[in-house]
Amino acid sequence: MQQSSRSNDVGITESSASVTSRPVTGGALDALLVPALERALVEVDGNAPLLTTMTRYHLGMVDAAGTPTDAETRIAVQGKRMRPALAVLSAIAAGGEATHAAPIAAGIELLHNFSLVHDDIQDRSPNRRHRATVWRIWGDAQAINTGDALFAAAHLAVLQTDPTIASTGTILELAAEFNRMTIAIVRGQVLDLGFEGRGDVTPEDYLGMIQGKTAAIVRYAAWAGALVGGASPEIAARFGQMGLALGIGFQIRDDLLGIWGTTEETGKEVADDIRRRKQSLPILLLRAQASAEDTERLDTLYANDVIDEEGVGVVLALLDRYSIQEQVVAQVTAAHDEATAELEAIADGTANVGIDGIRDLITRMRDRLS
Amino acid sequence: MQQSSRSNDVGITESSASVTSRPVTGGALDALLVPALERALVEVDGNAPLLTTMTRYHLGMVDAAGTPTDAETRIAVQGKRMRPALAVLSAIAAGGEATHAAPIAAGIELLHNFSLVHDDIQDRSPNRRHRATVWRIWGDAQAINTGDALFAAAHLAVLQTDPTIASTGTILELAAEFNRMTIAIVRGQVLDLGFEGRGDVTPEDYLGMIQGKTAAIVRYAAWAGALVGGASPEIAARFGQMGLALGIGFQIRDDLLGIWGTTEETGKEVADDIRRRKQSLPILLLRAQASAEDTERLDTLYANDVIDEEGVGVVLALLDRYSIQEQVVAQVTAAHDEATAELEAIADGTANVGIDGIRDLITRMRDRLS
Repeated sequence: MQQSSRSNDVGITESSASVTSRPVTGGALDALLVPALERALVEVDGNAPLLTTMTRYHLGMVDAAGTPTDAETRIAVQGKRMRPALAVLSAIAAGGEATHAAPIAAGIELLHNFSLVHDDIQDRSPNRRHRATVWRIWGDAQAINTGDALFAAAHLAVLQTDPTIASTGTILELAAEFNRMTIAIVRGQVLDLGFEGRGDVTPEDYLGMIQGKTAAIVRYAAWAGALVGGASPEIAARFGQMGLALGIGFQIRDDLLGIWGTTEETGKEVADDIRRRKQSLPILLLRAQASAEDTERLDTLYANDVIDEEGVGVVLALLDRYSIQEQVVAQVTAAHDEATAELEAIADGTANVGIDGIRDLITRMRDRLS
Repeated sequence: MQQSSRSNDVGITESSASVTSRPVTGGALDALLVPALERALVEVDGNAPLLTTMTRYHLGMVDAAGTPTDAETRIAVQGKRMRPALAVLSAIAAGGEATHAAPIAAGIELLHNFSLVHDDIQDRSPNRRHRATVWRIWGDAQAINTGDALFAAAHLAVLQTDPTIASTGTILELAAEFNRMTIAIVRGQVLDLGFEGRGDVTPEDYLGMIQGKTAAIVRYAAWAGALVGGASPEIAARFGQMGLALGIGFQIRDDLLGIWGTTEETGKEVADDIRRRKQSLPILLLRAQASAEDTERLDTLYANDVIDEEGVGVVLALLDRYSIQEQVVAQVTAAHDEATAELEAIADGTANVGIDGIRDLITRMRDRLS
């Protein structure tokens, strides 16, 4: 445990000076994003006010009674907004204006939240961002409806893209890819649920799963942002590759924080993913490398419904024995390095606010503590 | 019961000679629809074969093990396909060709099935069309994924609309309205779930709910079909009005059959909706008209978890006392008459295969026994 704590300091907190809880464009992003979100969300309003309340509750805009929340709550609930930020920055990086990507940014944010609402039902998660999840307040059936409405609203946001900026043909392509990306997310979720309780999932299986579940939407953000910013299809595809690497790195960083993150920063218990017996990358790497005896110790602990403090300590010690944290940190670094290399190749020496912003975003995401 | 059975004969079986289990264009519709469905469904295939199996299982194409079903099963599972038939006929009626509407027809059929998969979870329905529902085989979490994938595939089908037939601007409008229609369905479902257990739902509340839950997609089918068939926005809107009336009539007919349909035709127990204590239109009309004493008898029976044979008989006798079946039949007729009147006004004396087909479809739907 002591050693784990030491390598934690080495692996996670370096460069923490550049980390903030709401990276990138902050208020400027809000000024673009919120009106585009509102334009899409107003389509949900109608003869079922409960649906309006549930969707806006999930997004942090109102409480469970439908009363508007204060700014502090909204900011706390809305999360990092890394995906819409990347879409806007990619548009600027490609030579366009931030406003061009506002509909894409809103569509991505709504789609992400659609998947969160359904994930929370599937994972039986009681809380999200320190509030009760939609299913826990209104039941599974209404939570399914909430996700479905957010999904449709997400499409409407994307379709708001200005046809004087992107051709209608391009907007149709943005819409079609939006659905392909959604299917990739769903495929990832199908695989993830299928992994539960299985002892034979490999790190490679896992990386294939997160390409869909987590990275596909980040890839789309960069690709679509660049396209509405005026990038050629070839350049936009390279933005997409950059986003894919960033998305994979994002998930692996999440897995790292899920075990070695501090409660102070993540708001979760230390080793939360171990307590929840999640088969995240560190555990899969451990299982792939551990001796038969150590694997059996791990499997015995994970076969129980609950892992006590002693069991958590055993798993942490096992991870330490095989230097798993260092390996995961190396994978986080490699994925972000790949994203940076792709960015620099696209930029090819030219500098603009968008390129600078993405470079900064990648670094912040690599080093984030929550 | 005896009297109820007599009025059943009067109210339901007249014109039954024109009813078939698969109305409208049958094999010709399949020839258009199946390739368009396949083109969209192939997008779901990939690294999660379970998702492919679940989506195709729900559509009747494979069994739970993923083995292709025989033609008889496929036809039994695929249902009436009234919605895609209406889209295709509307395109022809508006002067276009059947093929123009194939992507729309496929999109509607997939969207309808998305909503069925999620409805089955929400309603805890164990069976659909004589087969186990997706959630019962694979669990709620994977059934949510199945619906989500069908939703995305439905969009991809709509986006297949040939841009040399409809302008890209029109296709964007088709896509946006597709999402507005979906939100209307979700709103209807939110209301429907909210009605459960409430004793104060009025027939008017109910009709507002089914405009979304059931009729919005029929409206879209007629509107979108006409639009890709070359109708002006004004004429397409009138096709939509016709579809809305037909959709409302369709749901009320379902409510009629849910109580007075025969097992032989519907495949369900007689008075199935009473056994399930559904608050369908006949029950709401009864509650609106019954004496305080009769309302209390109804409410007492509906407050129990199970209604026995004697209770079913009591409810049927109450419905008979207030001539509810006749009122519901009158509403079915009125809605279909409204659809026919709208159709004749659009046609304005001109005849074509599409107009004839819709006229026939409306009659078949009005008189259907299952």
